[in-house]
Amino acid sequence: MSIQTRPHQGPGRKGELQARFSEIRAQSEELARGLEPEDQTVQSMPDCSPTKWHLAHVSWFFETFLLSPHLKGYETAHPQFGFLFNSYYEAAGPRHNRFERGLITRPTVSEVAAYRTHVTQAMNDLIDSADETLWEQIEPVVEIGNHHEQQHQELILMDILNLFAANPLRPAYRPWRAHEARTSGRLSFVDYPGGVFEIGHHGEGFAYDNESPRHEVLLRPFRLASRAVTNGEWLSFIEDGGYRRPDLWLADGWARVRTGEFAAPLYWEKTSSGWEAMILSGQHKIDAEAPVVHVSYYEADAYARWAGKRLPTEAEWEVAAGALPITGNFADSSYLRPLAAPDATGMPVQMFGDVWEWTQSPYTAYPGYRPEPGALGEYNGKFMSNQMVLRGGCCATPDRHVRATYRNFFYPHQRWPFAGLRLAEDA
Amino acid sequence: MSIQTRPHQGPGRKGELQARFSEIRAQSEELARGLEPEDQTVQSMPDCSPTKWHLAHVSWFFETFLLSPHLKGYETAHPQFGFLFNSYYEAAGPRHNRFERGLITRPTVSEVAAYRTHVTQAMNDLIDSADETLWEQIEPVVEIGNHHEQQHQELILMDILNLFAANPLRPAYRPWRAHEARTSGRLSFVDYPGGVFEIGHHGEGFAYDNESPRHEVLLRPFRLASRAVTNGEWLSFIEDGGYRRPDLWLADGWARVRTGEFAAPLYWEKTSSGWEAMILSGQHKIDAEAPVVHVSYYEADAYARWAGKRLPTEAEWEVAAGALPITGNFADSSYLRPLAAPDATGMPVQMFGDVWEWTQSPYTAYPGYRPEPGALGEYNGKFMSNQMVLRGGCCATPDRHVRATYRNFFYPHQRWPFAGLRLAEDA
Amino acid sequence: MSIQTRPHQGPGRKGELQARFSEIRAQSEELARGLEPEDQTVQSMPDCSPTKWHLAHVSWFFETFLLSPHLKGYETAHPQFGFLFNSYYEAAGPRHNRFERGLITRPTVSEVAAYRTHVTQAMNDLIDSADETLWEQIEPVVEIGNHHEQQHQELILMDILNLFAANPLRPAYRPWRAHEARTSGRLSFVDYPGGVFEIGHHGEGFAYDNESPRHEVLLRPFRLASRAVTNGEWLSFIEDGGYRRPDLWLADGWARVRTGEFAAPLYWEKTSSGWEAMILSGQHKIDAEAPVVHVSYYEADAYARWAGKRLPTEAEWEVAAGALPITGNFADSSYLRPLAAPDATGMPVQMFGDVWEWTQSPYTAYPGYRPEPGALGEYNGKFMSNQMVLRGGCCATPDRHVRATYRNFFYPHQRWPFAGLRLAEDA
Amino acid sequence: MSIQTRPHQGPGRKGELQARFSEIRAQSEELARGLEPEDQTVQSMPDCSPTKWHLAHVSWFFETFLLSPHLKGYETAHPQFGFLFNSYYEAAGPRHNRFERGLITRPTVSEVAAYRTHVTQAMNDLIDSADETLWEQIEPVVEIGNHHEQQHQELILMDILNLFAANPLRPAYRPWRAHEARTSGRLSFVDYPGGVFEIGHHGEGFAYDNESPRHEVLLRPFRLASRAVTNGEWLSFIEDGGYRRPDLWLADGWARVRTGEFAAPLYWEKTSSGWEAMILSGQHKIDAEAPVVHVSYYEADAYARWAGKRLPTEAEWEVAAGALPITGNFADSSYLRPLAAPDATGMPVQMFGDVWEWTQSPYTAYPGYRPEPGALGEYNGKFMSNQMVLRGGCCATPDRHVRATYRNFFYPHQRWPFAGLRLAEDA
Ligand SMILES: [Fe+3]
Ligand SMILES: [Fe+3]
Ligand SMILES: [Fe+3]
Ligand SMILES: [Fe+3]
Repeated sequence: MSIQTRPHQGPGRKGELQARFSEIRAQSEELARGLEPEDQTVQSMPDCSPTKWHLAHVSWFFETFLLSPHLKGYETAHPQFGFLFNSYYEAAGPRHNRFERGLITRPTVSEVAAYRTHVTQAMNDLIDSADETLWEQIEPVVEIGNHHEQQHQELILMDILNLFAANPLRPAYRPWRAHEARTSGRLSFVDYPGGVFEIGHHGEGFAYDNESPRHEVLLRPFRLASRAVTNGEWLSFIEDGGYRRPDLWLADGWARVRTGEFAAPLYWEKTSSGWEAMILSGQHKIDAEAPVVHVSYYEADAYARWAGKRLPTEAEWEVAAGALPITGNFADSSYLRPLAAPDATGMPVQMFGDVWEWTQSPYTAYPGYRPEPGALGEYNGKFMSNQMVLRGGCCATPDRHVRATYRNFFYPHQRWPFAGLRLAEDA
Repeated sequence: MSIQTRPHQGPGRKGELQARFSEIRAQSEELARGLEPEDQTVQSMPDCSPTKWHLAHVSWFFETFLLSPHLKGYETAHPQFGFLFNSYYEAAGPRHNRFERGLITRPTVSEVAAYRTHVTQAMNDLIDSADETLWEQIEPVVEIGNHHEQQHQELILMDILNLFAANPLRPAYRPWRAHEARTSGRLSFVDYPGGVFEIGHHGEGFAYDNESPRHEVLLRPFRLASRAVTNGEWLSFIEDGGYRRPDLWLADGWARVRTGEFAAPLYWEKTSSGWEAMILSGQHKIDAEAPVVHVSYYEADAYARWAGKRLPTEAEWEVAAGALPITGNFADSSYLRPLAAPDATGMPVQMFGDVWEWTQSPYTAYPGYRPEPGALGEYNGKFMSNQMVLRGGCCATPDRHVRATYRNFFYPHQRWPFAGLRLAEDA
Repeated sequence: MSIQTRPHQGPGRKGELQARFSEIRAQSEELARGLEPEDQTVQSMPDCSPTKWHLAHVSWFFETFLLSPHLKGYETAHPQFGFLFNSYYEAAGPRHNRFERGLITRPTVSEVAAYRTHVTQAMNDLIDSADETLWEQIEPVVEIGNHHEQQHQELILMDILNLFAANPLRPAYRPWRAHEARTSGRLSFVDYPGGVFEIGHHGEGFAYDNESPRHEVLLRPFRLASRAVTNGEWLSFIEDGGYRRPDLWLADGWARVRTGEFAAPLYWEKTSSGWEAMILSGQHKIDAEAPVVHVSYYEADAYARWAGKRLPTEAEWEVAAGALPITGNFADSSYLRPLAAPDATGMPVQMFGDVWEWTQSPYTAYPGYRPEPGALGEYNGKFMSNQMVLRGGCCATPDRHVRATYRNFFYPHQRWPFAGLRLAEDA
Repeated sequence: MSIQTRPHQGPGRKGELQARFSEIRAQSEELARGLEPEDQTVQSMPDCSPTKWHLAHVSWFFETFLLSPHLKGYETAHPQFGFLFNSYYEAAGPRHNRFERGLITRPTVSEVAAYRTHVTQAMNDLIDSADETLWEQIEPVVEIGNHHEQQHQELILMDILNLFAANPLRPAYRPWRAHEARTSGRLSFVDYPGGVFEIGHHGEGFAYDNESPRHEVLLRPFRLASRAVTNGEWLSFIEDGGYRRPDLWLADGWARVRTGEFAAPLYWEKTSSGWEAMILSGQHKIDAEAPVVHVSYYEADAYARWAGKRLPTEAEWEVAAGALPITGNFADSSYLRPLAAPDATGMPVQMFGDVWEWTQSPYTAYPGYRPEPGALGEYNGKFMSNQMVLRGGCCATPDRHVRATYRNFFYPHQRWPFAGLRLAEDA
């Protein structure tokens, strides 16, 4: 969030933001369509949360940071919801254990829907009634609330896939949407010069606090792969013993290979008729042309070493991405799976959408970084250890959510994000 | 199950058993009434199972042991249900992990209901169409299937209480049903002579295989408490430092006291207005006159030592119970909580119903015990280690399910059964 | 310990007990001969303790229960030793964590030796100076201290084997002592009549409190195997799929088979030249004629089921053993491994020595059991849950330590005791 | 290791390196002086290793990478030592489990001493007999072997302190060596300009591969604290609620505060007479003027936030250190504890020695980094995830081991290194 830097735009801005709020709230509800109450209640592992928890938590966010402090006479739907639906904001009071979210069968899915309606209406009341002074104060929080809800939209999809993959019945969340057959082009590398570049949020439009301040970085000449690594290429890695050669691996990753945790991408299953993978449309044969997804940082790093390349740094990625339009296979395309790369153009393709791309950059503060004051300061800064930066968004990311400066982050062992990789090398 | 010993009674017997089947199936469905799909899906701890799993598993039992082998042309509802709903029968094929039952959101609650209907109808077809030879063969399995379903009815109640107690909203499964205020009578002890007695199933009516063979036991004169230990008495134990005195405890129990696992009965909570407990009707003040419930064997044993008494053996309990009518506060009374003891009569009261009574007897085979051949032999025998015998049934046990020879068993640390205790001493 | 029941025998008794004390102290030190300081310091698993801990703990026992209360002016060797060397006596004050005994490199082995000398001398002072009144008071405690030290002598051997078996160098504690080749006789069964028998300590000589009171038991006619089950017979069990057939196993045992914990007796290793086992003389080929040892209760029970037999109860064992001389292959024979059975004689052989024999009896209190008052009451009673009784002593048990009424006990999964089995069946 | 870049210096160089080899071997043996065999055998936690393991492992290193490939007719002391004393080199064959090093009581301490002598002599034979061609080949490996042994010298001290701190007797490894009372000067900050700087090994003298290649970094103007944070300052942090304020902490660190793992620096104990800490000379009162040590990265980071500052990056640290002489309180001073800072001089003091300084830099590859080919390539590169860089050496680091470019690394939760912190801030 960069409250100070975004230029306010008067009444038009207010209407626009309110429309965006309504649109995003509706998108969340659309995501839950077709999920049974049973599906929305269960937590398949501690990293995941139930759909209805996500739906309630994003409402709690608006309630806690906007309605309770600013809407006169606002009454929370239930005195315990603040306890149940706070995710990790220490400053916002005590909270329920993350790993026990799946025990909470009440409020039910329909009670959560009512809670959402309650919050949506109150938010509209707040926005409608806000005078200019109040609006200037709350506008950045409304905006962060919108973006926050979008983040949870992607988490809903990640978590539902994880849940359905644990079910031997292999349920489909959405029917398979066909795409014209396409062959990922031959892998080539695009050259970039070295020098001093600026990265980070430049001050226009929304950005999270972790994208600031914009600052200079020193890059050496490098080359970036034209597209993401494909399933077919990953199969070559497997067949060449990639999961059996310790020299390819970071020690912490190899330890997980030895326990059997890593032997193929998450959700892959070797059946009598070949490799299949569980996706949001049920279990399907691997598409050799599509980008590999659901690999850990350790696997991405081992693959790059096997290929004689390396992963890009986040600065390299951002410099390369800065020149590209933010289009790609996002959730709104409704494929909900990565697709084979479009034809190359001399510039890298698939930088946005399809799969999050692991970079070799640990997630740390930009020089001069200052978190927001208050509870919202917990949004990003306190996670700046042990995680790696991913860039570009994926097939489960809502449209208009990411940008070239956007920094996603996960622990290097996590595989349930829609994460893949793009190779790089020194020029 | 004691197939050999029960006299068959011709056509009347068939109708009677079929009626019982229908009645028990309907009772299971009645138990699920008022539970939301969310409530029926979650597994609150590895010892528990989701309601819908119970409802499906008891149907799987009829399918596996009766419909598949005996009903011509029977088709199972789904090829994977055998995998999902087998509890522990190794001989019946591979099965889903017990502790992952809560991940299975599909089949949904309504699909499980359809599965139940499918099985119930097929069972009626089977019974209707069975000729005398087949009937003689399947009758004992129908009967064990009925009793099996009743056992799971009690488990449903135990598991729902465990689930709801994990929810800070403290939902009520059933509204509180008032009972006339009653004072548990003064504790007295009833004398029993020593000598050689017979215990175990005498061959009439249904019994599980673990109740056989009937055999002689040698008892020394003993005295049995007139009623169960009450919450009020348990409070005295707490206030007297019962949970702080290692000399009262078995070493394995004391280890759990030291970790904080045992500090009061399960589901008790000390609030600013005193001790409360979560029951199937939500959270309520402790009723000092009602029997204490949800204590482990270790706690029961420590209490008895504190009181200068001991727990009865299962043989003592059975000899004393043999003379009593099998009446008491069972699930059908719909209080779903233990009630203060009725007036004493010179004989022990509350022997049946209210709370299962921990005995000091480890759960082992009776001399000469032989499990049933085939998969049904796994019903009881393989659990004969590390567990303790409990007797008498409880407020969550279906009416007509227990008898004086009935042997329930749990691990000594388990507290989610409706288990309490009755004191005994040497005469 | 049975303080009340042993007849005192005046001055002769005192000298005899003092001689026994000296002899047992010296035996402990002899056991440590040849063990390096390194060997005596390490704890190979939480169930085990370092040799030097055992050597110190048995001294602490004399110090705590005799010297501190009764020897005027006695000063403990070190104020912290009471904390470090208390095993489990809650009433004797706080104590060091059992599983951290291996972290305590100081006091060193030679400091522990000095501590032993200090305690031995003080004990001799105490005994020498005790007048008749004091002697009557302390005599039973001296005796229990002697027997206590013998128990730890066996534990030293069990724990050293466990430690050396964890070392790829497979060190030998003692050189192999050859025994004339012997073939275990054909397995036969000895008949015993049913009826009411007495078991338990009859009041003469020393016994622990858990062997009292002597009481009547009702037995049915039974038959007891002429000798223990051999390694050769166990190999047949393995080759017949004994570790792959769930129908043979108690559920809690099968769970350990499935994790790979149980696949052969502990310390067995299948090498390119056949099965070998680590024993106190290093790694050796399996002797098919010798009794199998280092099996859990679950394995013993599964074997018996596979053989169409059962394990004896402890009462059956004791009734059969009551008529036999207490001779056998104990530690003093210095083979330190079970030996093939001597020729059968119409009576069971190997009842004493060679291997502890798992019975089917859970370890519980005899009717009317009362633990000693004070800290010594923790010696036995608090362990009366979850464990099984073993009878007869083994090749690591000191001579003159066991008797027909002696009740040893371990958890059913434990395999580091020298435990085997003898079959039984109903007559 | 940077084999390519070091200029060879003919015969003089050979003699010098051989002398260094002898000196370092002797220093290791001197470190073990006064440690009992018991002390040298135990592993107090999985991160630690027994002293005798360290002593053997560094010999195994010379044996594996020099003697076996290059000394004709060399015979290893024992065929299993390669298995027991390989630390983590996958390419050098299978190895013993790291966390079971404390189970290996044989070889004994004196057998390990003999192994060391065997290796030292063979190494001298190898060096003496090497012709110029062989010498050029082995020289860099001899050098890395020397530095490797020095690293383990520091680990021996870290691990012995951890072991002795687990002993309630609080043994002292070395007697307290008094130092003149000194007051750490007032904390001030030294200014550094921004710009493009070079960091990394410049090619002269020994360096590990992770210090290369030398490369440019872009720094912003910054200020570095004149000295390390002291115990007295840390006490203020504690007293101000530093361990109770979540806003100061990274989320992964706060999770450890909540479990109680972090409540004060490791080895601190609050006694009735105030804070004390276990050091290599036993337990002593905290010296308020000396640098705080045994804090995790999370604690260091929280402290910096509390102080309104930040930790330096490793590039900042190296640029500042490049101008300073490599002198300080290292192990050879034999204080074996951090000492109060000497008087300030306008330049930072204590940059070398006393305490390793946590930087805010994750441990990653320098741009263009290439690990050595072969097994030695595992020395550094495979640990480049999840760890943080520390700089400067400590009071347990051997003299002449560190340099300005030296990169040490530990996981952010680890506290058994002698790690403290120095503050920094943006200029
Ligand atoms: Fe959130
Ligand atoms: Fe069942
Ligand atoms: Fe003991
Ligand atoms: Fe090393």
